[in-house]
Amino acid sequence: MHVKEALRTTLDRNLALISGSIEFLRQQGKTVFYDAEHFFDGFKDDPQYALATVGKAMEAGAECVILCDTNGGSLPNQIRNAIEAVKEKFPGIAFGIHAHNDSDLAVANSLIAVEMGAVQVQGTINGVGERCGNANLCSIIANLCLKMGLACLGPEHLARLRQVSRFIMEMANIPPNRYQPYVGRSAFAHKGGVHISAVEKNPKTYEHIEPNLVGNKRRILVSDLAGRTAVTRKAEEFGLELSKGDPVAMQVLEELKDLENQGFQFEAAEASFELLINKTMGKSKKYFDLVGFRVIDQKQSENKDPCQLPRNRSEAERK
Amino acid sequence: MHVKEALRTTLDRNLALISGSIEFLRQQGKTVFYDAEHFFDGFKDDPQYALATVGKAMEAGAECVILCDTNGGSLPNQIRNAIEAVKEKFPGIAFGIHAHNDSDLAVANSLIAVEMGAVQVQGTINGVGERCGNANLCSIIANLCLKMGLACLGPEHLARLRQVSRFIMEMANIPPNRYQPYVGRSAFAHKGGVHISAVEKNPKTYEHIEPNLVGNKRRILVSDLAGRTAVTRKAEEFGLELSKGDPVAMQVLEELKDLENQGFQFEAAEASFELLINKTMGKSKKYFDLVGFRVIDQKQSENKDPCQLPRNRSEAERK
Repeated sequence: MHVKEALRTTLDRNLALISGSIEFLRQQGKTVFYDAEHFFDGFKDDPQYALATVGKAMEAGAECVILCDTNGGSLPNQIRNAIEAVKEKFPGIAFGIHAHNDSDLAVANSLIAVEMGAVQVQGTINGVGERCGNANLCSIIANLCLKMGLACLGPEHLARLRQVSRFIMEMANIPPNRYQPYVGRSAFAHKGGVHISAVEKNPKTYEHIEPNLVGNKRRILVSDLAGRTAVTRKAEEFGLELSKGDPVAMQVLEELKDLENQGFQFEAAEASFELLINKTMGKSKKYFDLVGFRVIDQKQSENKDPCQLPRNRSEAERK
Repeated sequence: MHVKEALRTTLDRNLALISGSIEFLRQQGKTVFYDAEHFFDGFKDDPQYALATVGKAMEAGAECVILCDTNGGSLPNQIRNAIEAVKEKFPGIAFGIHAHNDSDLAVANSLIAVEMGAVQVQGTINGVGERCGNANLCSIIANLCLKMGLACLGPEHLARLRQVSRFIMEMANIPPNRYQPYVGRSAFAHKGGVHISAVEKNPKTYEHIEPNLVGNKRRILVSDLAGRTAVTRKAEEFGLELSKGDPVAMQVLEELKDLENQGFQFEAAEASFELLINKTMGKSKKYFDLVGFRVIDQKQSENKDPCQLPRNRSEAERK
């Protein structure tokens, strides 16, 4: 389908184009990695022809063949079966994987390929890419290093994963995904009372890795689900002495629940929670009184500089 | 670890608690589904004990045992191996899966469990949940129905998947993820010239499913990567007649590229692009002139109603 309908050429001509392009590049002394676009879809339609394109690329001198799930529609089993067929037909082939996330499976599909011997994984930091994104290298790298024991990055580089993730989002002008595995702001955030208490006893209960391995950190969230452990833990973070048995801890918790019932939220407002503890402990100070404030935005005409105020200000105001 | 450190009880006492709780509920005439929290981590630490807890739950009368990857740290192979051990020890067991997304694998892990016979999948719409979220039911349902041929939702319900996804985000007050598989705004968005041209010839080239099956739709994005196909396709959407050969199409494309180079973006500003085409076709009208505008926010004191203006307005203004 891809050859006949998208490229509008014949199957034989397509094979000749693959050979020709790779041979040309090889003659220029280049190392060639062949991206087999739409390989997995092609394999579903016509396995023999899909394998023939890979064979042509190898014959023509490609050093590595990248098997692509271009539209992101393949399931892990389909990836596994197609790679098995490739390895059977071309023993010793050097291959890579290029997965898209349209089925929410790009990370899993990439890991399967690595398990089966892929030597290159194509992806992007944070999975930035067309439609639902490319395979997310942050998740893949962390899984390979920390779960599968493959040393693709040293620990000192892995510890900068979160920093790199944030940098790329900054550059791309995309808000970071707080729920992103490993590097997101919420990846090691604990809210429920039981969870917080368990994490205090042993972080491994609710944390699959140590957050600092990928440059992230644990966050204890305060909410109506929190218990006294959460309150005293936060007080400690703010440098305030408050023991779990202190009646003030219970009072803070009551006040918190009352305010949440009124619609307030403190999960993302840590400074407000700090003020709440201070107030309940009788430590808050009043630094200033509000007398009033005023914000004005104005534009006087399409072409005039908006910063330039009208000359006769009082006249303009009386209109 | 979970039993001894988090629950602070003994292994035997934990087994007795499982039996006791389930037997109690059974005596009340309830159907009991047992959630084996931390099952996969427990299995990694001590497979025999993890299996023993499942055995106790079944003996005590649980109708279904839900195997939980509570901290989301398990890889697909670990899920597969543990489920195999459960099935081997308890042939005919009714089991389910509860996966978290901390390793970016919750969807893949859930699909594996279904392949192996799971009768319940626990997850949430859009994967809303602690830390990196629970397994995303939108992706799982779509994959099961459209890729694995399991009729878990009829086509008329599946076609409301995007609507349900948006509704839940609205209720949870979380901005929808435009890159979300199947239901996101960008899931079927095409930008590159070659991609748009291929999708025009046959959508299957770059779309793994028909967008309307899940209530989504195709979007053609205009950007400096677009070609004349994209411009004429958008003009058609706006009800404007513009053929691919028309020099105006080329002119719109030039203007678009020029404006993008200046920093403008039209991908998310379709109405602005419509105005641009109209202008280039000489069809734009000027409906009004800007004379000026002014926005004022003010608050005069901490306790006064902000809507209440000061009584002597001109005096206040002259201050």
